[in-house]
Formats: sequence, C-alpha cells, structure tokens
Amino acid sequence: MIYLDNAATTKPCKAAADAMASCAELFANPSSLYGIGLEVEKKITEAREIVADAMGVRGKHVYFTSGGTEANNLIIFGAAYSRIRLGKKLITTRIEHPSVMESFRRLEENGFSVTYLEPDKQGRVPAEAVRAAADKETTLISMMHVNNETGVIQPVDEIRRSVKDIAPNALIHCDCVQSFGKLPVSPGEWGVDFITVSAHKIHGFKGCGAAYIADERRVKPLIVGGGQQGGLRPGTENTGGIMAFGAAVREAGPDADRMRRLRMLMKNELLKRLDNIKFNGSDEYNSGSVLNVSVSGVRAEILLHSLEARGVYVSTGAACSTHKPEPSHVLSAMGLDAKDIDGAVRLSFSQNTTEEELISAAEIIAEEAENIRRIMR
Amino acid sequence: MIYLDNAATTKPCKAAADAMASCAELFANPSSLYGIGLEVEKKITEAREIVADAMGVRGKHVYFTSGGTEANNLIIFGAAYSRIRLGKKLITTRIEHPSVMESFRRLEENGFSVTYLEPDKQGRVPAEAVRAAADKETTLISMMHVNNETGVIQPVDEIRRSVKDIAPNALIHCDCVQSFGKLPVSPGEWGVDFITVSAHKIHGFKGCGAAYIADERRVKPLIVGGGQQGGLRPGTENTGGIMAFGAAVREAGPDADRMRRLRMLMKNELLKRLDNIKFNGSDEYNSGSVLNVSVSGVRAEILLHSLEARGVYVSTGAACSTHKPEPSHVLSAMGLDAKDIDGAVRLSFSQNTTEEELISAAEIIAEEAENIRRIMR
Repeated sequence: MIYLDNAATTKPCKAAADAMASCAELFANPSSLYGIGLEVEKKITEAREIVADAMGVRGKHVYFTSGGTEANNLIIFGAAYSRIRLGKKLITTRIEHPSVMESFRRLEENGFSVTYLEPDKQGRVPAEAVRAAADKETTLISMMHVNNETGVIQPVDEIRRSVKDIAPNALIHCDCVQSFGKLPVSPGEWGVDFITVSAHKIHGFKGCGAAYIADERRVKPLIVGGGQQGGLRPGTENTGGIMAFGAAVREAGPDADRMRRLRMLMKNELLKRLDNIKFNGSDEYNSGSVLNVSVSGVRAEILLHSLEARGVYVSTGAACSTHKPEPSHVLSAMGLDAKDIDGAVRLSFSQNTTEEELISAAEIIAEEAENIRRIMR
Repeated sequence: MIYLDNAATTKPCKAAADAMASCAELFANPSSLYGIGLEVEKKITEAREIVADAMGVRGKHVYFTSGGTEANNLIIFGAAYSRIRLGKKLITTRIEHPSVMESFRRLEENGFSVTYLEPDKQGRVPAEAVRAAADKETTLISMMHVNNETGVIQPVDEIRRSVKDIAPNALIHCDCVQSFGKLPVSPGEWGVDFITVSAHKIHGFKGCGAAYIADERRVKPLIVGGGQQGGLRPGTENTGGIMAFGAAVREAGPDADRMRRLRMLMKNELLKRLDNIKFNGSDEYNSGSVLNVSVSGVRAEILLHSLEARGVYVSTGAACSTHKPEPSHVLSAMGLDAKDIDGAVRLSFSQNTTEEELISAAEIIAEEAENIRRIMR
C-alpha cells in the first residue's frame, strides 16, 4: 500500500495511538475534583501547551474542538458577530475549505456582505487583493495558509501589514489545517487573531482540532453548556483525542524542505514517464505536501480506482466533497478548464512518505494512465 | 479502587477500546472514494445502526456529534429557530444539564420566552406541569429522561399525550444521556422528536455523542461545512469515537432491575451504618444508577477527598460544574436547604459495579463520615 492521500487524513502515529489507548485507564472526568480527575486534566493541559508551543502562543489561548470544521465555524461566526457594531464587511477567498465557505455563506444570509477573493492562475490569492477589498468597515478577513487541493501557500503573513492602515477593525483568521506541523505557523509574527488546526491531518485521530483565539472577548461560544474550557467551548473534553493530538504534534516537525524535495521528485518522475500532464498550483509557493496533476484524456475517478487496485491511494480533490458531483471549486477558481479539472488527481504526502514509494507510485500511475488512455482512445 | 462516579464518566469497555485501537489501521477518510475509505464509512454506518436500533429508530435519523453538549445545542437551537414563525414559547425544567439550560438562556436573550418547570420534592417534574405551561404557541419542550444528580426518571413518556391537544406545534426533546443503555429509550413510543445520547456515559470514549432527529427539516445545522452526515453535521467523522460508541452500545443492556437493586442495597448499607443521613430524589421513579445522599454535619467535598484517599471515588454533583462554587441547581430546585446541599454526595453505578464493591464502599463512607463528624464537632 502506497498511501498518497495525506491531505484527506493521515495514519495515527504510534505515540498518538498509545496516548489514545492510555485513556481506557486514564478515564476519569477531567472536571472531577479527585486526583485521578486532576491527572486527566493535567494531560489535557500538557497537550494544550504542546499545541500552543508549536504556534508560539500561550496555552490559555488554545481551545480544543471536535475538529477543523467546528473551529472554523466557532471563529468565523464568533468574530463576525462580536464586531457587528463596527461593520458587516467580511473578506475571504474562493479557495477556502467548505467549512469556511459555508460559514461565510450563512453570514451573507444574515445580512453580512462578503468579498470572495479570486486566486491567480497559480492558485495564490495576492495580498494586494486583500488590501483592495478592505476598508474601515471590514471586521474579518479569513484566508487559509495552505490550500488543501494544491498545496499553495497563501500570503497570510502579509495581510496584517497590508491592511493595517485601511482596515483597523479587521480581525484576521487563518485556517492552518493543512500547514500545521508541516510549515511554521506563527500567528504572533503574522499579526493574526485566529488559527484553526486539526489533529487527524498530522497523525492524530479524527474528531479533534483546536482554535487559537488571541482575545476571547472577540468570540461568542458556538456551543454552550458547562464550564469546560472557560465556557468558550464546553462539553466533557475528548481527552483521548486531545492527548493523541499533543503526542502527534510533538512528533511532527516542520520539515518543509524535505516535503518540497519529495514533491519535486514526484513531479519529475511523472514528467519522465507520462506525456500530456499539467501540474496545478505554484511550485514557488508550495508547502510540498500536495502535488495536483491533470492527466489529459483520463478521468481522475477512473484513474483513482485503477490505482487503488494496485495499492496506490490518491484522491480526486477534497475528501469532504468527493461525494458531490460538482467540479473542484479551487481548480475552477484558478481558471482551469473543465477537462483539466476532470483529469485532476491529488497526491499528498506526509512525514512518512518515502522517495522509494513515490518512484514506485509514479511508475504505477504512468502505467495505469496509459492503459486508460489506450482504452478510451 | 471503587469507582462510584459513573454519572460523570465511565471506563471504556474492552470492545470500545478495541474498536478505537483498530482506527490506527482503519484510518482512511470515510468520505474517500476508494475501498479503504468505504470500509470506514461502512463501520460508521454499522455503529449508527446499533445506536439507532437501541432506540428503535432508523439509522438515517441518527447524527453523530462531539458529545451530549453539542447534540443538545444542535437540537434546541435548531428546533426553536425552525419553528420561529409558529411561536416563541419554549418549555424546559429547572433540573436540566447545563448544556440544555444555557441553550435556553441564550434563546431567551434572543427574544424567546422560556418556562422553567420546577420539580417536586422528590426531584420529578410532573407531566401536568408541562400541560399547564403549554399552549398553541409552544414550539419546543425539552425534558431530560433521567436526572444526572439524583437518577430520578422524568415523565418523558407522558408529555406528548398530555400536550397533544393544546400544543399541536410543540416539538419534544429528551436528553437521554443518563438513561441510554440503562433504561429503554423509545422516542417512537413516547412520541418524542429529538433524543440526545453520549458515548462516554456508557463505556465508550469521551468526544462522541449522537442526536436522534425524527425530521431533519426541523433543525438547522449548528456547524456548517462539507457534505458529511447529509450536511446536518459536517466535519470529518470521529471514526474511532463512533466505532467505539457502537461497540459500547452493543455491550450495554438496559438492566434497570439490577441497577435498582444495587441502589437499594447501597441505601440500606449506608442506613445500617450511618445516622443522620438523607436520601435525595424519588426511589419509586429511579433509574437505579444514582444514589444521592446528604450526610448531615459533613461537607461533601471533604468527604470526597477522604474517600479518595481510601480508593473510593464519588462526586459532589455534576462534574461539568464542580469547579463552580455554586450549590447544585438540581437540589436547590428540589427545595433542599443549604446544609443538605452542602453535604450531598452522589454515588453512581455502572454495569460493572458489584454488590461487594458497594458493601465495602458503604463501610468506608460510614467510617470517613464519622471521622469528619468527630473532627468537626
């Protein structure tokens, strides 16, 4: 098995699996007053500190959620409503994750005005476009760090500087689900107010994510209840998921150079073996974790299943929308034509991916693509 | 260790722990198009069917959430807003879980009118009180099945019948977090529209719960994003938590008779050994899973720590609010005086609790309580 769908999800690492398993014994409620409860609470605090450290922020600003989707919702709704008296203008991009897009659509239904910025042909939204759209009524700007379909790095580190003078009331959110644990994520340096991260994209378990919130007064809880997490995100904590997240972050290391080398290797291996292919998204601004390739004359879904039969796992786009028949909103926004979108395959890597796997995968992809082309001709 | 805080949380059973551990290998994204993704999706569907079967409903009406708190929020906000054109009158009780209470408080802030029904001295809210409060503008009635501090069973099976003629637009929600897997939960028979359940209260893992929603048109998603769970609760599914929940439900069995016998045994063992104690909440209408006892002259928190030192784990009330200095809202609503509330200890049982454990615990509780009384005198 060669698993090249790490942007969809990753295999839990051993440390994460061990942390999760330990919860079958360390099972007390972290809110309990007795020692075994406090012990669990301490484990949660440790995990929170690990996640916070990895972003260079203080633990008290990190709130665990059920995943990236919930964290994006919490931040976007929270921020928009907390500043409603200062304005109702919001800015995001056309290439965000559905949990960001849909949050903004709901805000539009509720009277907010949203500007959706277009990416360039390389899949990058220019920082100048943010500036052009912003004004003093802008209260929230949300831009992802690394796109999940192309791996393209967005200029999230330039937004604050670029809008500081013209949009003083703007809060800034970055969905870092695809970059956290792979590239440096630095809300402090970037001047960003909110960050979203997720455990299962970096070898933790599904069902756990976190929101970095620089100032708690700037969000309203999405979910209300008991006093957990300062009331900002109540509910008995997912202690296993949280401890596993901490363990996974501890083992993850920004290793962008290696990832970029892997990506370029794969690109070259495919170019060597296969004609009429096109790569989607910037090489210059790329996390290295995703290679998006359109194989001319081949429907991606057919190629996916041929590869599956040979033990190579790739995807046709974001997993969360693969059951929808619509073409990728990201590739569409980048201006690709329908045929190139239809033939687009996403290969995504993790810290476990090896050069040998990629060379084997490139051979298999080339063989299967040629087969399909022969049959379809 | 004698663990008598099962209303706060339970130890994951072996089947649940095994299911969770299997996700370190069965890690594909359930939304992926290839076989290993479909295999995970199938496991989720299996778990959903198990949870649904245990309530006698169809799987397609069960939505997995991050826990009981989120499910309560989803249902209460969703139901209230879905019927806003039919009325803004809501009914709940004074003894609900904070995630229900706080949801209603937020609805009050947003222009809804809420009636909070009082329990009687035995901790039971009479069905007639619901009828007395309901009218044709009532759109939602929310009452828990079993109270988490007293174990008292509420007349959730009588509500529909009792308000049918006078409140035809009322949707009915039951928070069954404390009863599911212990007592029969039968939304169909009860004529109830929404049910909340949680995994970690019945030997699953923390971070997973579910909402039964009879008619999806009657709720708006609380969280928006990808297409998972029909868009009603998007986000990559917590596959480990869900599979473990299914495994735990399969092993749980309504065993109310045994639980009630355990509870009465514990009550008698304490009565034999300790003077000046009072039991809070009805014996007649009790799930058997909770015994709430006020030990006169003893502060519960001190007793809790003395017992902890001897390996017996109990609580002073709901775990989610133990870090708040306020007295129990449930016991207050039942009319207990401040001293009895201050001396109230909650003992809660699970299917693993044995008679021997209870007899030993009763001895230890009596000794420690007498010790504290001696010192305090």
